[in-house]
Amino acid sequence: MAVNLSPPRPGDLLPVKGVKLGIAESGIRKSGRKDLLLMSLAEGARASGVFTQNRFCAAPVQVAKEHLASGKAPRALLVNTGNANAGTGKTGIAGARASCEEAARLIGCDPRQVLPFSTGVIMEPLPVERIVAGLPACVADLREDNWARAAEAIMTTDTVPKARSRRTQIGASDVTVTGVAKGAGMIRPDMATLLAFVATDAPVAQGALERLLADAAAHSFNRISVDGDTSTNDSFVLMATGAAGGSMIDHPSHPGFAALREAVLEVSLGLAQAIVRDGEGATKFITVRVEKGGDEAECASVAYAIAHSPLVKTAFFASDPNLGRLLAAIGNAGVRDLEVDLVELYLDDVQVSKDGGRASSYREEDGKRVMAKSEITVRVVLNRGLAATTVWTCDLSHDYVTINAAYRT
Amino acid sequence: MAVNLSPPRPGDLLPVKGVKLGIAESGIRKSGRKDLLLMSLAEGARASGVFTQNRFCAAPVQVAKEHLASGKAPRALLVNTGNANAGTGKTGIAGARASCEEAARLIGCDPRQVLPFSTGVIMEPLPVERIVAGLPACVADLREDNWARAAEAIMTTDTVPKARSRRTQIGASDVTVTGVAKGAGMIRPDMATLLAFVATDAPVAQGALERLLADAAAHSFNRISVDGDTSTNDSFVLMATGAAGGSMIDHPSHPGFAALREAVLEVSLGLAQAIVRDGEGATKFITVRVEKGGDEAECASVAYAIAHSPLVKTAFFASDPNLGRLLAAIGNAGVRDLEVDLVELYLDDVQVSKDGGRASSYREEDGKRVMAKSEITVRVVLNRGLAATTVWTCDLSHDYVTINAAYRT
Repeated sequence: MAVNLSPPRPGDLLPVKGVKLGIAESGIRKSGRKDLLLMSLAEGARASGVFTQNRFCAAPVQVAKEHLASGKAPRALLVNTGNANAGTGKTGIAGARASCEEAARLIGCDPRQVLPFSTGVIMEPLPVERIVAGLPACVADLREDNWARAAEAIMTTDTVPKARSRRTQIGASDVTVTGVAKGAGMIRPDMATLLAFVATDAPVAQGALERLLADAAAHSFNRISVDGDTSTNDSFVLMATGAAGGSMIDHPSHPGFAALREAVLEVSLGLAQAIVRDGEGATKFITVRVEKGGDEAECASVAYAIAHSPLVKTAFFASDPNLGRLLAAIGNAGVRDLEVDLVELYLDDVQVSKDGGRASSYREEDGKRVMAKSEITVRVVLNRGLAATTVWTCDLSHDYVTINAAYRT
Repeated sequence: MAVNLSPPRPGDLLPVKGVKLGIAESGIRKSGRKDLLLMSLAEGARASGVFTQNRFCAAPVQVAKEHLASGKAPRALLVNTGNANAGTGKTGIAGARASCEEAARLIGCDPRQVLPFSTGVIMEPLPVERIVAGLPACVADLREDNWARAAEAIMTTDTVPKARSRRTQIGASDVTVTGVAKGAGMIRPDMATLLAFVATDAPVAQGALERLLADAAAHSFNRISVDGDTSTNDSFVLMATGAAGGSMIDHPSHPGFAALREAVLEVSLGLAQAIVRDGEGATKFITVRVEKGGDEAECASVAYAIAHSPLVKTAFFASDPNLGRLLAAIGNAGVRDLEVDLVELYLDDVQVSKDGGRASSYREEDGKRVMAKSEITVRVVLNRGLAATTVWTCDLSHDYVTINAAYRT
């Protein structure tokens, strides 16, 4: 079902020195599904995270933020699927803390050095006892070459595991960036997306790591939408172990920063786009590019108005060039002083609209030709400034309804 | 398919003295479908309108606003379906003007006394010649008892014609309020909805008429959503002929104002709710009531976050009490300082959540019982102020996708 998305092949995923991963089946999800992941970080590693801005943010998100704020360097990330531990009140917080305590005991660190993450059904009590019972198997399984199995263990409605690797050279060191993510529905991240973990063995100082994280989030996970719903559990964590050696990357002016930034962004963008390609029920991968706007915020408003319109999305599903719906969405983006006569609309290379109406060169058969493709770029030129941005989304199909009508069964 | 919605029965719709309606088949839509409506107003009638705030507002909307602003009392409304005349640039404006000119010539008035309205596909050229050719049949058909046929003539993807009547007593006069509306998709009105026309024979001064219109719009058409998409053509017009006699209602302090307001609101709300009941693919009618908010705007934000969430809507379609999705939507409403521990959530009479988590009294079977109904009230108590509002919406079903994937075929 996913649009031009394959699972990582053996050898695609490069281990990151200083990061080990252990997987178990703890019985939170149905039998036969791995549902627990422990990632351990070598001593001296750093981590930085961005999280959902949903006010009902999940208990693990609250605890992870608190643990990061403690200033203690994280030694492990603990991830369960099958239960979001969101909308669970004080009991949920206690459950997230208890899970961290048990993981800390097993690997020998302070509980504040463990960051918890959950994904699954909202407002169901977290089965802490199953997590605790499953943890020893995770610890026994910890290995550096476990990234592919980790990507599988964090899937929920995902149909394809999502992982990316990239190698780069910084000074004399070979540096690796590898990451995994999950997510297919409730995807319109406000700070990050439903669970993405990216690690590098480059040596990075905390401030530079946070800068890299914010930058990568802004241009990857914060620019995708499947259904416009922001999850309670969105979390994106960037980790740096320093095991590759070399001088500490402590500032954007460091000679290694740009190369590392490029590698992190490429991995993050690959993961974010994989989430859209595997969006619930997706049959098309749509790139929405808005150019010549007054500022990036209004470009994003226009792009999201298109990406969130159920009418636009069903037209893509049908391969029907009912392109007036795109104009309606643009007009609906809340850009109050938009001059519609200046707006140009393109579908791939085909100019659709001009001077507030259909372009005289436009032919229905050209629209049909582009709409029939599985990958389509919608380009909107606002002609009111110099800003631009890009958002990635998918279509709205029968399978989206089927998947979400049956989600808990 | 519509949820508990019947067409008006013979005798349900009361004529409004001074308003005549004529219908024709002009060949804009497929053969056998009425697609042209002319409403004529007696000399001395007044009208007031609210329109879409979509920046790509349709040519007829632009012309109707201009004609209303001319200060000339409207003598006719001209409505076509099958073509929205939106995203059509200068040619579209010229087409709307030409239609008004021909109608004015036939009934003997100034073209600025004709208000044009269109609904249908966006960004297709308006076939003005067919409208012009169809107008004489409309004029020949003008009758006061044609409201039911008018409601049929303006349907697009509607499955049930929408019309309401209400009689009230003002002083010594029997006053009638009758209205028709159309709309089933691209429904999230910002000022009004896809074509609603309400008329009364009460005598109402312009200022009071505008007050009545704004009030009715705010509590009816501006409080519904099918799919969150604001149309390019939304228009809601309130007309008063004065033919019922009695003293001019010229101010909210007039003794007749309250009774007329109640009648207009009842008709408008009935029409607005009919649009939701007949929402594309709807199988459930959902009332979202948000109470004890800081102000009405934040109550509306929370209500619309619920009403627009595809995940909430598919859960309703499936009758699945996956109610954590409601919490996620509430948290996603942009109320930045919302204290989630104070929020209470009810499904009809069942308390679902409390203290930031599931209420201890909640039982899955109670949630299932309510979700199985065709009419459900979601009640959210924010416990942070005194404001409240209500929004009406429907579920998201397979048929929504089917209808909108096939819209132009």
